[in-house]
Amino acid sequence: MIQLARPYLLFLGDAADQLAAKTAVGVAQWRPEQCIGQLRLPDCHADLGLPDQTLAEARAAGARTLIIGVANRGGTISDLWRETFLQATDLGYDLASGLHTRLGTIPGLADRARAKGTRLVDARFSDRAFPIATGVKRPGKRLLTVGTDCSVGKMFTALAIEREMQARGIACTFRATGQTGIFIAGTGIAVDAVVSDFLAGSVEVLTPANHPEHWDLVEGQGSLFHASYAGVSLGLMHGAQPDALVLCHDPNRPHMRGLPEYQLPDLLDCIRLNEQCARLTNPACHTVGIAVNTSHLPEDRASELLKTIESQAGLPAVDPLRQGAARLVDAL
Amino acid sequence: MIQLARPYLLFLGDAADQLAAKTAVGVAQWRPEQCIGQLRLPDCHADLGLPDQTLAEARAAGARTLIIGVANRGGTISDLWRETFLQATDLGYDLASGLHTRLGTIPGLADRARAKGTRLVDARFSDRAFPIATGVKRPGKRLLTVGTDCSVGKMFTALAIEREMQARGIACTFRATGQTGIFIAGTGIAVDAVVSDFLAGSVEVLTPANHPEHWDLVEGQGSLFHASYAGVSLGLMHGAQPDALVLCHDPNRPHMRGLPEYQLPDLLDCIRLNEQCARLTNPACHTVGIAVNTSHLPEDRASELLKTIESQAGLPAVDPLRQGAARLVDAL
Repeated sequence: MIQLARPYLLFLGDAADQLAAKTAVGVAQWRPEQCIGQLRLPDCHADLGLPDQTLAEARAAGARTLIIGVANRGGTISDLWRETFLQATDLGYDLASGLHTRLGTIPGLADRARAKGTRLVDARFSDRAFPIATGVKRPGKRLLTVGTDCSVGKMFTALAIEREMQARGIACTFRATGQTGIFIAGTGIAVDAVVSDFLAGSVEVLTPANHPEHWDLVEGQGSLFHASYAGVSLGLMHGAQPDALVLCHDPNRPHMRGLPEYQLPDLLDCIRLNEQCARLTNPACHTVGIAVNTSHLPEDRASELLKTIESQAGLPAVDPLRQGAARLVDAL
Repeated sequence: MIQLARPYLLFLGDAADQLAAKTAVGVAQWRPEQCIGQLRLPDCHADLGLPDQTLAEARAAGARTLIIGVANRGGTISDLWRETFLQATDLGYDLASGLHTRLGTIPGLADRARAKGTRLVDARFSDRAFPIATGVKRPGKRLLTVGTDCSVGKMFTALAIEREMQARGIACTFRATGQTGIFIAGTGIAVDAVVSDFLAGSVEVLTPANHPEHWDLVEGQGSLFHASYAGVSLGLMHGAQPDALVLCHDPNRPHMRGLPEYQLPDLLDCIRLNEQCARLTNPACHTVGIAVNTSHLPEDRASELLKTIESQAGLPAVDPLRQGAARLVDAL
């Protein structure tokens, strides 16, 4: 499992816009207390609202890991990026990357990190061998966010629930399963990078036995209705053994993400299949609410939509961004 | 995708019994025409009924790959095995292994193979990067064997259907997804060794567009009801886009394989969930029959059981080992 040294300096590089830096945006949004500052190169068009710092300044202020939470233009590492990474390594930073290519393939960087005793962490990859899932029930409670589609707010919803539970003094841990979540939590497993045979087992490791009243808030991935990733969603679900599901939905999708031939599933069909599959490893599992992304709608239309979904599903429906997750936590 | 040079010499080593050599047994059973002979070391207690041959004899007779289709005692490679593999490499053999450890970790073997220009093929591993599944429907027909559990005859059933189709002159290809299947077909992908994100995509590659009347007979893995492997089963299913399912079942299981806390699913529940999930990528998918392992029963009790299952499920139920797969092919 990935373990990052904190706090962070967030590297924005020469991000073309805020969207290119969305991973760093997520870290700054959910863990501002772990972010010493941001490092922007010339021609950077993203801004996290954090203090701009040099490598040396942030290091002196205690930063231990440089987070590369930004897409590299054209998929190549520019000389300017490379030079920054080498300097960071010389200053004793660990590097943690969400890039598609491994840090170790950047010329000279692996040798430098070895010499300095720092780490190169590729959050999109998984090197560790995990056990085969046992399916054995373990103590502690678990909530899993599932989706009608990919990228419909599963991480956001789990974090909003964490925030609400913490405010209420409920013991809980956000369990990250993707790169942005891993940077936010400082630990986690990129489950889609795990060899298929060990996927469910890796999630058993990620969400271990705990106090009976403790909640693991597990970040879901993909959707049981996504033709490319449903296997990931199912293995993740079986390993998590959720007591509670929250279904995340974006009503503004013309089709399943990346699959123009595939329509979004009916909400009730989606709830039924998720519950049926989850009950294999936790027969008590049930859906407690629906998280809806209403960002495309004005306030009144959003309320209307949420009411319609609530009456259809017979479950609380909220937009966690607009309203927080209080009603989801109430429903537990 | 793995591609093996044929024909084979089958290495049985010092197998403790026939079961330890079950991979080689499968190859000899389903592709005898590809097997030049067997190579047994002193203290071997397995016998495929093939001619015993030395490395040199089989090589002279045309053998191109030495298949290591046997479990190594205690998980270690003995000096005798190692010596055999080095000699085989010197003689120009490719080596293909179903062992849990990679051939390249055997001291000296990788260097020797490189020098001779021969290949070391680890069928349990997957090195190739596969694309993300597109879910786009492609021409050709596909049958997938699914299971109530692991190791209930999914490979055997697919091969029995292949044999029957070939006897009838129906164009078909067995598509291997596990190590034994790969040795039998000479090609295939160990899907459980593929990184989760690319699992469904790897099966799209394995079962490509074909003539509209051609059948791919896809070897299933695991079970949607197996807590350790259901994610593999689902990703495989979505990538295969099956038109037809055959459900494989072993009625003699006290519990799910390796999971003492898990009971076997009800047959009808199993058919329903498999069809529901398969229809995501192929809405026309339906179950055409049930393959039952009745090897623990005398002939009359076996017939009785098959009749009971047939009337319960409303589908033909056969034991492919006893009766062949004719009634399954009739049902297509």
